[in-house]
Formats: sequence, structure tokens, C-alpha cells
Amino acid sequence: MKEKEVVTIEAGAGGEKSSELISEIRKILKVKGAWKNLDDDGAVLDLAPTLSLKRRGRTMKFGQMSKLVFTTDAFIVDPIFFPGGDIGKIAMTGTINDLAMMGAKPLGISLSLVIEEGFPKEDLRKILSSINKVSEETGVPIVTGDTKVTEKGKIDKIEITTAGIGVAERVIESGGAKPGDVVIASGDLGEHAVALLAARFNYQTKIKSDCKTLEKEIRAVGKYLTSAKDPTRGGSAAVLNEIAEKSKVKIVLEENKLPFKKDTIAISELLGIDKFSFPSEGRFVGTVSEKNAGRILKILTKFNKEAKIIGRIEKGKGVFLKTNLGAVKKIEVPRGKLIPRIC
Amino acid sequence: MKEKEVVTIEAGAGGEKSSELISEIRKILKVKGAWKNLDDDGAVLDLAPTLSLKRRGRTMKFGQMSKLVFTTDAFIVDPIFFPGGDIGKIAMTGTINDLAMMGAKPLGISLSLVIEEGFPKEDLRKILSSINKVSEETGVPIVTGDTKVTEKGKIDKIEITTAGIGVAERVIESGGAKPGDVVIASGDLGEHAVALLAARFNYQTKIKSDCKTLEKEIRAVGKYLTSAKDPTRGGSAAVLNEIAEKSKVKIVLEENKLPFKKDTIAISELLGIDKFSFPSEGRFVGTVSEKNAGRILKILTKFNKEAKIIGRIEKGKGVFLKTNLGAVKKIEVPRGKLIPRIC
Repeated sequence: MKEKEVVTIEAGAGGEKSSELISEIRKILKVKGAWKNLDDDGAVLDLAPTLSLKRRGRTMKFGQMSKLVFTTDAFIVDPIFFPGGDIGKIAMTGTINDLAMMGAKPLGISLSLVIEEGFPKEDLRKILSSINKVSEETGVPIVTGDTKVTEKGKIDKIEITTAGIGVAERVIESGGAKPGDVVIASGDLGEHAVALLAARFNYQTKIKSDCKTLEKEIRAVGKYLTSAKDPTRGGSAAVLNEIAEKSKVKIVLEENKLPFKKDTIAISELLGIDKFSFPSEGRFVGTVSEKNAGRILKILTKFNKEAKIIGRIEKGKGVFLKTNLGAVKKIEVPRGKLIPRIC
Repeated sequence: MKEKEVVTIEAGAGGEKSSELISEIRKILKVKGAWKNLDDDGAVLDLAPTLSLKRRGRTMKFGQMSKLVFTTDAFIVDPIFFPGGDIGKIAMTGTINDLAMMGAKPLGISLSLVIEEGFPKEDLRKILSSINKVSEETGVPIVTGDTKVTEKGKIDKIEITTAGIGVAERVIESGGAKPGDVVIASGDLGEHAVALLAARFNYQTKIKSDCKTLEKEIRAVGKYLTSAKDPTRGGSAAVLNEIAEKSKVKIVLEENKLPFKKDTIAISELLGIDKFSFPSEGRFVGTVSEKNAGRILKILTKFNKEAKIIGRIEKGKGVFLKTNLGAVKKIEVPRGKLIPRIC
């Protein structure tokens, strides 16, 4: 008898098995309309010829062929409160960042809550206040939502799904990196994973989740980026491989420029989980032409002094790490179970 | 000691307690931007001056001040497969209908899945095929998504959240009913609830879920509707009270024109649950001026021969049922536990 195929926990972790499941889903859904970038962080629809939007009393004008960008993310993190944030904060920053990564100004967010019966109101209010804080800081409103409650044991505490729409004049493609470009990280990576893992395993560390919005950074440097991605599920290994694959280039990172803090490396070694697969929730990796690199880095270090050039784009394919001794190690798309429920 | 406040199952059922929870949520989220209709099925943003969209090769033009409509819904139904549909079908029809109820042409849908580890791939494919079928029938694409997998016991099988964006030239407000208008139901109501309850309790009935999209009906009669709502969670009792309250009018239904099938009434009496609180997933109730009523009814009966005029709008407030014997009974917003996980 043929064994029954099931969805495995590995398919939820942002690595290779996730890509397989998503491809399978995408294959069944056949209608595409006029939308583009269906396999990117957000889908893109051309708006022509002119769109102007009133927001906070100001009228924003978007030129010929502005683009509507649409994205969504589900959040089932454990624990729901962690050093540096909570499930509400990352639901907001995650969706705002997906729009920002596409080069879009966020216009509004939808908030769908599935809550377990008996969930403390105090915790719900804390989560909503975190959401509101991000909303007030960025000016991006929650405009529509849904709230469902399910019986005890039918969901673990609370699940949040946010969707977001934004308008872009130029979409940042993840397939735009060119040989000769340099790879920039907007700060040290993987600290969202470290904060959650430390909370789960009672590991003592001063590292907090890196979760924050990237809207301002992208507004400042977006037009120079030839590609950009926020390394959430699957970490930098997943997004660097995505950029390399979509851009049809090879990425070579330098070991002496690695964007990881000591504690990140320590917890990675302790748990035997590759640090390149650690998710961040407020960082991006991107590529810029070599001539713009210095200027971009200078701007990014104003937001985060750990921003740095971590490697370069060459002809070829795959993602590699050049060690200090000159050896070359392939950085693969994460495989296997990885870390469930980090983001 | 003060008892700890928790989220109750009653707050998830679409009745009075749901409204209280949603008001509480809305109070914490303070940023509104230029969006309107924040407490309706979808939020509305004015687009000015002109927006034209290419879809399926055709260019659709929207005039001065077209409106972008944005909506979301979470689906945690039990059972996930039921006579007449499955969780995938209602996730699509629910979001397309929320856009249609606002008078908007759907442009694209986002699909967020949270799947329990070990969920059969065969079931996932069935659900996705249902989604694709609605997508192909309506031409509305799934354009972006997210797929998360959680450990066994952390979610019950699968949860789907869809968000949708659409463009409207005129938004149908739920507060537009006027004294003298008549109340129309697009077909018999409550059959989605009957199908799910029958499946749960092994009750024998030929009734199937009424779930279907209402896009065509609204395209045909939308411009004549002074108000419209699809009676999903909380059923017709919830949406008729919403129309009455927002329009500041009184709704009087006639018992001899009630839009319920015999089996719907039977299961309602058997379970002791008010039939007016039974959700539908492919029906709407709306109001039209008396002079348009005949024409509208004629159009709607082409889609569903059970479409009928069920009452009228008067000055005053509240929703009432005039019985065949001339007595008047108040139809309240549903209270208490109602039926969890129907939609």
C-alpha cells in the first residue's frame, strides 16, 4: 500500500521542503490575472496612468505606471512574548517589511486574529498595544480585520495573519543582482531566532529580537538596491540562495565580515543549528553596484552601526563562504526540521 | 482578588460579545490614515483622479475617485469538508463576497495557510483545488500567500486566512437603508450552518451549504441597493441589526415571507438555536427603494428562485418579526455561545 503523503513540520521551516510545498500549492492555483512577482514577498499590479492618494491630509502623487503591492504573512510564534518584542510587533513589522522589500510605501494593513478560548485579555491588550505602537511610529494604519475564537486546544494561544497593501514607483526585484555588485547586510543577523531560542531553552543572553520596521532604511537606500530581501524564515541562507537563483549569479561571502554576534554563533553551535538559517525580523540583505556601495553603507550605518558589506556577486551560481584560510564552503538552502514557530 | 479577564468562546460567534471584543480591539488601534468604513466588511481608500487596470488583456477604467477596498477573514471551520463545499471554498467565497458587499470588483486575493503537521496532502490538494475552482470561475487570482506548518496539537488540522483587494466606483454602505425601502433576501438563508451542524451531529438532511460567490448578483443589482450585507457569522439577526443600527431605521420582517427551508427550521428547533443566527456563505440581505423592488427581485430570482422580499424599512429602530397572527417579536443581536467554527 502506498504510504499516505502528509504535510511535515519540515515543510514549515522556510527551507527546501517549504519551497517544494509552496511550488505544489502554486501549481494548483492557476489564475494569475495581470499580477506579477507571484513568487516574491508581495504581488505586484500595475496601476496606470496616475494614482494620487490622500494620506494624513497630504496628497501623494504616483507617476506613470505606479504599482500596487500586496502581501500576507501568518504568525504562530512560540513564545508569544520574547525579549525585544511579541507576536503583535512581528506581525506588523513582518508585513511592513515585506512591502518595504518590494520598494513599496505601505498604505494599510489587515489584522486577522484566531484566539484560543480562555486567552488572557491582558495579553491580548499587550499584543494589540505593540501593534498600535508600530502603527503610530510608521503611520501605517490597521484598516480591516477579523477576530475568531476557537475552543481550547484547537489553537495554541493566538495566531495572527496580517496582509498589507502598498504603492511602489519602482519594485525592488530579488532577481536584480549583477556580477560586480556587493552584498550588504543592514545589521547583524539572526538575533530574532537567538532571542526566541534563548527564551525557550532558558539560555542566558543579552541578545534581543532584532524585530523592527525597515521602511525608513528602504526609503533612504531603496533606489540603489539591485536586489533586497529580509531574512525571515530560513534565515540568510534561504534569502541569499533566492537572490543568487533569481538573479542567476553566484554570491561569495567573506568569513571575516560575517554579520553575526558572538552569542549568535555560540547558540548556533550549542544547538547545532546553522547560524545562516537563523531568522531576523528587522534586517535585510541586499545588493548594490560597487560604485554606490560606500554611500549606501554610510547611510545604513546611521540606522545600525553593524551594517556592513559581507560579500560580492560573481558570475556563476550558488552561495559560498570564503573562510579566512582561503577554503570555500557552500551555503545551502536550509533543509530538515530547522526551528519551527520562530516567526 | 479580581478575576482574570479572558477571551471567551462567546466572543467568537458573531453576536453581541463579538462586537464588544472588536470594539475593544479597534479602540487600541488608533491610526486610521485616510481609510474609511473601518467597521464594515472592508476598508475603503479613495483613489483619485483616475485608475485604469489591465486584467485578462482588457483595460478596465475607473472614474473620478474610485475606491480601493481591502478586507480579510480567518476560517477555522469544523468539519473542514462538508456537503456543498470545504474550508477552501468558503475562504474564497467569503472574501470575494465581502468585497462584493462593498460594491467592489475583486482584483486579487492573498492566501495564508497554517497547517498542522501530519495533515494529509490529499486533503490539502482538495482544498486548494476548491480554491482554484472559485478562482477560475470568477477570474479572481490568488496573488500572494504564506504557508506555515505547526506541531501536532497546536492547531486543529488547518486554518486559512484570506485577504482581498478590490476597486469600487460606488461603495454600498450598510448604513444606507431608508424608511419606505423593502428588504430583500437573495435566497433562503442559514443553509451553510445547517450543512455543518448536520455533518457534526449526523443529522440526515438534503440541505447543502449555500456557499457561493455573490459577485455576479451584486454586479447586476448593486447600483440599486441602498444597503447590503452577507449574513455570515451571527446570521441574518446580526446583519439586519447592523443595517438597522447603522441606517438608524427599524426593520420589520413578515413571518409568511421568511427565507428559511423546512429542514432549516427543523434543525433550529431540534438544537434550540435561533434560525436567524444561522450563517450563510452565499446569500445577502439588502434594501432597495420600493419602486426598484420589483425589477431587482426579477433579476435576483434568475440567480436563485428563492430570492424574495422579506420585509420593509420603517422609521424607528431595531429588527422585528410580524407573525401571521399579527404579534410582533423582536429579533435581537445573537448572544451567548452560538455555534463556534461554522465559518
